[in-house]
Amino acid sequence: MSNYSAPIRDMQFVMQELAGLDKVAALPGNEEVSPDLVDAILEEAGKFAGGVLAPLNRIGDEEGAKWSQGGVVTTVPGWREAYRQFCEAGWPALAGEPEFGGQGLPKLISTAVMEMWKSANMAFSLCPMLTTGAIEALLLRGNDEQKAMYLPKMVSGEWTGTMNLTEPQAGSDLAAVRTRAEPQGDGTYRIFGQKIFITYGEHDLTDNIIHLVLARLPDAPEGVKGISLFVVPKFMVNADGSLGARNDVECVSIEHKLGIHASPTCVLAFGDKGGAIGTLVGEANRGLEYMFIMMNEARFAVGMEGLALSERAYQHALAYAKDRVQGTEAGVRGGPKVSIIHHADVRRMLMSMKSQTEAMRALAYVVGAATDLAHHHADEAVRASNQAFVDLMIPVVKGWCTENSIEIASTGVQVHGGMGFIEESGAAQHLRDARITSIYEGTTAIQANDLIGRKIARENGVTIKSVIAEMRSVGAKLAEGDDEALAAIGRALHAGIEALEQAVAYILATYAGDIKAASVGSVPFLKLFGIVAGGWQMARAALIAKAKLDAGEDGGGFYRAKVVTARFYADHVLAQAPALSYTVVNGARGALDLPEDLF
Amino acid sequence: MSNYSAPIRDMQFVMQELAGLDKVAALPGNEEVSPDLVDAILEEAGKFAGGVLAPLNRIGDEEGAKWSQGGVVTTVPGWREAYRQFCEAGWPALAGEPEFGGQGLPKLISTAVMEMWKSANMAFSLCPMLTTGAIEALLLRGNDEQKAMYLPKMVSGEWTGTMNLTEPQAGSDLAAVRTRAEPQGDGTYRIFGQKIFITYGEHDLTDNIIHLVLARLPDAPEGVKGISLFVVPKFMVNADGSLGARNDVECVSIEHKLGIHASPTCVLAFGDKGGAIGTLVGEANRGLEYMFIMMNEARFAVGMEGLALSERAYQHALAYAKDRVQGTEAGVRGGPKVSIIHHADVRRMLMSMKSQTEAMRALAYVVGAATDLAHHHADEAVRASNQAFVDLMIPVVKGWCTENSIEIASTGVQVHGGMGFIEESGAAQHLRDARITSIYEGTTAIQANDLIGRKIARENGVTIKSVIAEMRSVGAKLAEGDDEALAAIGRALHAGIEALEQAVAYILATYAGDIKAASVGSVPFLKLFGIVAGGWQMARAALIAKAKLDAGEDGGGFYRAKVVTARFYADHVLAQAPALSYTVVNGARGALDLPEDLF
Repeated sequence: MSNYSAPIRDMQFVMQELAGLDKVAALPGNEEVSPDLVDAILEEAGKFAGGVLAPLNRIGDEEGAKWSQGGVVTTVPGWREAYRQFCEAGWPALAGEPEFGGQGLPKLISTAVMEMWKSANMAFSLCPMLTTGAIEALLLRGNDEQKAMYLPKMVSGEWTGTMNLTEPQAGSDLAAVRTRAEPQGDGTYRIFGQKIFITYGEHDLTDNIIHLVLARLPDAPEGVKGISLFVVPKFMVNADGSLGARNDVECVSIEHKLGIHASPTCVLAFGDKGGAIGTLVGEANRGLEYMFIMMNEARFAVGMEGLALSERAYQHALAYAKDRVQGTEAGVRGGPKVSIIHHADVRRMLMSMKSQTEAMRALAYVVGAATDLAHHHADEAVRASNQAFVDLMIPVVKGWCTENSIEIASTGVQVHGGMGFIEESGAAQHLRDARITSIYEGTTAIQANDLIGRKIARENGVTIKSVIAEMRSVGAKLAEGDDEALAAIGRALHAGIEALEQAVAYILATYAGDIKAASVGSVPFLKLFGIVAGGWQMARAALIAKAKLDAGEDGGGFYRAKVVTARFYADHVLAQAPALSYTVVNGARGALDLPEDLF
Repeated sequence: MSNYSAPIRDMQFVMQELAGLDKVAALPGNEEVSPDLVDAILEEAGKFAGGVLAPLNRIGDEEGAKWSQGGVVTTVPGWREAYRQFCEAGWPALAGEPEFGGQGLPKLISTAVMEMWKSANMAFSLCPMLTTGAIEALLLRGNDEQKAMYLPKMVSGEWTGTMNLTEPQAGSDLAAVRTRAEPQGDGTYRIFGQKIFITYGEHDLTDNIIHLVLARLPDAPEGVKGISLFVVPKFMVNADGSLGARNDVECVSIEHKLGIHASPTCVLAFGDKGGAIGTLVGEANRGLEYMFIMMNEARFAVGMEGLALSERAYQHALAYAKDRVQGTEAGVRGGPKVSIIHHADVRRMLMSMKSQTEAMRALAYVVGAATDLAHHHADEAVRASNQAFVDLMIPVVKGWCTENSIEIASTGVQVHGGMGFIEESGAAQHLRDARITSIYEGTTAIQANDLIGRKIARENGVTIKSVIAEMRSVGAKLAEGDDEALAAIGRALHAGIEALEQAVAYILATYAGDIKAASVGSVPFLKLFGIVAGGWQMARAALIAKAKLDAGEDGGGFYRAKVVTARFYADHVLAQAPALSYTVVNGARGALDLPEDLF
């Protein structure tokens, strides 16, 4: 069993000192946002996450969602009650559009709250997450009738939503989607086809489920430009909002997965009994384009899963390391037995978990705040520069945080020693849960291709160069003083920035002429960028913490801890940057030269 | 489902070209060892591994060993028959002492064969592996009666053996063992206590199980110097070799683990009904010392698990990557769909798995051959230098191969995309199975402490410096020619050796005065040494392969592949060495400066 206690102090620090909560609060529509309001929300969310969701995490893993004949999916005992409380407390509506009953709070705040749900119980959090994606699709491109019919109940959580993209032959390559939509002449369509990997595609938490489905019209062009988006409810909705007939969509099985057992991953059959009735969202043949618009949101959310699972794994390992007594202090013969946090390598592992988690949080929240500015700032130029930054960083938040979370959760197992391998301890669940995050919503390779192609090469590196310039200015400040820790951070950051610049130059020089060579380096480049961007944020944090300390503020030790943590990050994590850059620049031939038959 | 095909070609290359099979064959007692004999053994073992053991791997994971009331443990369907065939074919006796029915073949050969068992079915292989450990203990310190009573049937596999070390409060810290042994005055002892994590502590494969148990005598000193070793059979053995009364040892439960489900991990209760009868092995109070003697063997074997699981995960991912069609060739719009091995990042992942697996194999077999020389060479100086090399490298083989295997198996999951997360595909099992290897037989931290303390600092780095000198001579050869690939390998090897030397200098300068600072760097150092040692062996392999190619030998593409693979390893793996060295040298403060209450 592990408890979860929301890391509110670090969340506040990051929101206020690094992400610019004041600037977000100054945006039009955010008049009520204040540090006090934020603190109140974080406190309430923390209570719900730690008190209601976290205790269900383990049973969710052990029992898992159950499928039974007739396509019925039963969630884990406790899930229905927790979901009811979740909705009653108004959590689904936190960032929702006020027009449809949402509270319209900034992304920066919902980001912190989302982190808590995901830390407490990732499998649970997937249901509201997918609903948010479906809401987004309807908000963006739904017509008034669709919005009125579905959005209020989805924003409140009364109904949930799903995203139906994948088919057996169409995973990363959605151009291969085959599900058909036949127009009925009355504005509705009949949908036929099978979708797989549909998260919460069927469940017993709510009366209705609203499926968003990619399918092809009869006259659609082949490939990516012939895919349309449809909304297909589990139960038809009458004009008065009451539920009508059961639609022709059935859950034919759920997957037996490595992790997130409590989240039903469904195979959905559309149209086995004559066609599932749906309506077109937006224009025909533009479904994939709509998906891409929503993708930032979804990828950011999965990146947050990486952060959140890392935090949970860290708390779990830390509690064990403080509790477990084994051996004596190094170099002390015959001394008293000590808790394992006294052992140097256990400390190293814990600091590695802690420092990377804090770096991820800092970067993710900064991107969350930039999203607010990109959407709501009065100045168009500010909106545009923030949007460019968000677009650049989304694949990094997604790819880097999720890859990290696998390693961090694995380190959490290692801290537990033999007990880590025993499921009862709960440490292994975090690793199993984390393992999906670098795969769904686009594998790390897909993030990395998006990063080097659409986000860097296409604009000749304009945005990343401006980010690097900001990093350099932080680096310069570190070099100014004579503090030993800041100087150490400065050395590693300087080397990291140099390494990143070399890798960017290689990508820009190579992408157009030799896309395969550039692509070999894409995942190492994404990790490099994530590590250096995390180092940039940790360096900012260290500078601020040092200034507070110099001003006589200790913050209950928080600022001292931040400086040490940033230093650890610099010497153990940021230090990897030059090696990754070397691989980006030199690694193509070794990866491409072997003929397929010699593998 | 995944198949396993023993990588015989690479095994032969490594044995003959890198590990010096000829030198091993020239040792006294190895007169019959020839390349032909080796080939015949590898072929037969490969058939058994691929045909009998590998097909049981998946069902072993799905069904797992079962415990039932009364302490009965039932192995997975198929296990008994496979074990019977395994013994009938004579595999348990391959490296056993001829005096007790073994074939006495060199370690180098049994290493390759062991790799196959572990790749095919790690959970199965644990039973003979633990038996080998128990045999070793009896061979080393058993008296004639004990040897005659137990060894012939253990060497043949008719009985299996176990190692009973761990107790709930005594994991890594065996000084804390509390199990008691009370002398009966007739040369026997009654054992009382509970042991946990006992691999194959109970099962239905054989009529008897021979437990080796650490326990304390009534008058024993506290701590490590008061632990004795006992042999405690499940069934008493009569003078004529027939089985007598059931001994007082019972399996009270088995663990629910992340992986190796088919290997029963038992809680054994000794003495609940008056005392389990055992006899002392060797002298009183020297049990831990005996364990240390056997530890090289066991740690090497677990390192082999890391190699073996990496090979299996690679084969599994490769088959999927050649089969799975998704997307088009990069840069080709509207082209035909291709198998995913055509995508640059999938290639990168596969090459990363393949190159590290080959590097691990090379290093492990070189250490295996050195073990043969250390035990059997006629010249005492040669024996001593080889033993020093083996002692130095064992923690590296154990720690580096097992840590690698976790990452490599995780990469195998990633190659599978969404299917990797579905248990049906089998990719996740390798990750789950691999996760124990860096924990049992001493965690990576324990290996790393052994490495920097006992193996390096204690002798002031004499052996590692001589190894580095050998590395340098290989590096010099790489720089000689004008081959582009060899030059690239040479650059990375040179940087790796420099990095290793700096880290060794830091360890030597720091260990005595500041053991905690040195210890923070111990695991990064172990990885650094593993990476550079693997690079050294891959560089040797590339030089040999290049010479063959220059001489007109292609080996069916094997030599071309070896050069490319070594180059990939250099640019993607060996390239990490300087970063690890930086962390070893600079990482102490960040890891040690945070007070415990600020975590």
